[in-house]
Amino acid sequence: MSEEIKKIIARCRDRIEARDPEVLAWKTLDWDFVDRQIDALTTWPMEKRGALFGLPVGVKDIFDTADLPTGYGSAIYEGHQPGADAAAVARLRAAGAIILGKTVSTEFAYWKAGPTRNPLNLERTPGGSSSGSVAAVADGMVPLAIGSQTAASTIRPAAYCGIVGFKPTRGLISLAGIKALSNSLDTVGVFAKDVAGAGLLSGVLAGRPNLMAPVGSVSPPRLALRTSPEWEKVAPSALDAVKKVADLAAQHGADVTTDAVPAAFAELADIQTSMMACEAARELAHEHRCHFDALSQPLRDLLVQGESISAAAYDDGCRRRDECLAEIDSLFGDADALLAPSTLDEAPLFDEGTGDPIMSRAWTLLGLPSITLPCGTGENGLPLGLQIAARPRDDDKLLGIAAWFEKLSASAP
Amino acid sequence: MSEEIKKIIARCRDRIEARDPEVLAWKTLDWDFVDRQIDALTTWPMEKRGALFGLPVGVKDIFDTADLPTGYGSAIYEGHQPGADAAAVARLRAAGAIILGKTVSTEFAYWKAGPTRNPLNLERTPGGSSSGSVAAVADGMVPLAIGSQTAASTIRPAAYCGIVGFKPTRGLISLAGIKALSNSLDTVGVFAKDVAGAGLLSGVLAGRPNLMAPVGSVSPPRLALRTSPEWEKVAPSALDAVKKVADLAAQHGADVTTDAVPAAFAELADIQTSMMACEAARELAHEHRCHFDALSQPLRDLLVQGESISAAAYDDGCRRRDECLAEIDSLFGDADALLAPSTLDEAPLFDEGTGDPIMSRAWTLLGLPSITLPCGTGENGLPLGLQIAARPRDDDKLLGIAAWFEKLSASAP
Repeated sequence: MSEEIKKIIARCRDRIEARDPEVLAWKTLDWDFVDRQIDALTTWPMEKRGALFGLPVGVKDIFDTADLPTGYGSAIYEGHQPGADAAAVARLRAAGAIILGKTVSTEFAYWKAGPTRNPLNLERTPGGSSSGSVAAVADGMVPLAIGSQTAASTIRPAAYCGIVGFKPTRGLISLAGIKALSNSLDTVGVFAKDVAGAGLLSGVLAGRPNLMAPVGSVSPPRLALRTSPEWEKVAPSALDAVKKVADLAAQHGADVTTDAVPAAFAELADIQTSMMACEAARELAHEHRCHFDALSQPLRDLLVQGESISAAAYDDGCRRRDECLAEIDSLFGDADALLAPSTLDEAPLFDEGTGDPIMSRAWTLLGLPSITLPCGTGENGLPLGLQIAARPRDDDKLLGIAAWFEKLSASAP
Repeated sequence: MSEEIKKIIARCRDRIEARDPEVLAWKTLDWDFVDRQIDALTTWPMEKRGALFGLPVGVKDIFDTADLPTGYGSAIYEGHQPGADAAAVARLRAAGAIILGKTVSTEFAYWKAGPTRNPLNLERTPGGSSSGSVAAVADGMVPLAIGSQTAASTIRPAAYCGIVGFKPTRGLISLAGIKALSNSLDTVGVFAKDVAGAGLLSGVLAGRPNLMAPVGSVSPPRLALRTSPEWEKVAPSALDAVKKVADLAAQHGADVTTDAVPAAFAELADIQTSMMACEAARELAHEHRCHFDALSQPLRDLLVQGESISAAAYDDGCRRRDECLAEIDSLFGDADALLAPSTLDEAPLFDEGTGDPIMSRAWTLLGLPSITLPCGTGENGLPLGLQIAARPRDDDKLLGIAAWFEKLSASAP
């Protein structure tokens, strides 16, 4: 067993040593620390070996780790050593996972990019904020990784790098020990090359066995494309890719409808933008007070913007979100899941930033479970994504539908 | 100015030195650290002096402080020194407050009591989990203090010690940098001797000027007593105290109605109990994995219970909470606010634990703003509390009603 684990780790290490000097996915790696974890695992009695036994996992550097520094993507916390693991990291360890290392995050999981490049094209961004976790999985450096999403930080980078990114229903996975950006929005996300991997990892983190082994829906799903104002900004190739896979689904028996979102839902992306600014100004009050000069200009702008939003405007946004949640059936209608492009287009050039999160803002605000699957390519040959969302707490149904799509795509010519 | 501040601090220090050897409200005090804060304040330009300029505040020891150890009420974290302030602490400092010291919390803000005694009767508990913050304010050691509430940790101790405890709408004050017990329930609370102090402190923490100077409602409020199953456990004296003040309110023009809560709301206390166990098991995953032997038996029981609750049962509780929130008008009817006893009875003996949180569980689950005001005494002559709650985000209205009651009681014979 231990030999098998060592082989998996050696493959990761070879790939990292070959590729990470260019991809720059990892913030902290310590091979002695990894070896110590392998040694510790060999003492585990067979009956205690959890679902991730011996599997290496990359951890975004906004999750506290008790034995690796955690820098939150900011020079302010360079070398910072937390006293405890984040709850999600503790769950990974309890299931026998090996923490392979910490992956690059943008500054406090907001906009300012770290050094990480898109492994499919080094001139491109991998997206953010979970840049390193996604790049490492996409490049085959590690099979599984964890990240987070406040606007689109799981779905967007996963789509840009051509892997599966899954953001379970808000609140299913503990946020304890994760650097907060916006408490009403922050959600843990997971990355893998396929739906099975995403299900396994999220099931462990949420303590939900029913997510751990997703199988494709037996009957073809009922699906809806609900267009909102942000769809007008989507590149034709990204729109075509989603329409093509929707057509393919329909050919295989899925019921697919297309309609505009109800009016109240069309405003959610703006509400999310405003709420995130407000809450970031609140959650990062210490950094604002003590380290303002060490923050990037975009983050300073966010905090200043957040403080300028009135309590009445914030409260109004909360009320409108709650009203939409109470009327969630008017968004889904008869559908089990919604389909949308994961991003506006393929990954932008590295120097242009980490891309626009707008295609995930509304669903993040509602806390819907959502997933991105690779779905065609753009004009530059880089991957695009199909974003699928289900009703809150329908995570197992969503994974089943995602697995159905995965089989569909595999069987497509 | 500096002399005036020094006088306030000297009064606090005298009281603490006289009384704290018996009350044991403080976990960490460092007078040099306090003096350095006073010195730093003297350099503030007049226009920057915030709403709490020079005012000492006690901080519950589950809030991270960058320059004082933070032990979360557990031996596991004895001497632990966080790298940053909790966001709420940063807001206090930005407003010019002096962090007087850290106050005793129960273990991770759950049940296992610290050493703190009720200052009104040293044989009694001050309640929990914000034991030290409440005892310090009640005893006049500090005018203001902050704490938290997951079940009843603000309302219950404040009622037991005869002071004002205010828990704003869930989410109004940042949880960043506070040790999590249950992310769906944890809420910051504040303590003062009067409604004005609670309003001032909560307004600073929430960044909401409209809370900072509550004035009594101009017109008499519309009030409702909504009895739920837990009311059957309330001691006759505590029930009488609430009825008496409700009668007084009615004599002064308030519209007061009494009725049972709608059936769906009668189950909320049980749902809160179950959700708290589930989430505690999740949030404290690191302590469960690495320090199980160092946890108290009640906390171990909570974590084990939490892990035994199925995902389906947890999800069902979330759904039923959300349904109640969507129908919140059926709870309030025409009323602006609800009245209830703050606790089942006056403070239990110290050896009997920190008291039953049941009278606040439902309102905490709904995230309603709630406040407790001193309201009569029990059979042993110890204080009882009137608990008042308003609709989510009606915090300013609630403070206005509380100030109205405060005036009413002051004018009562």
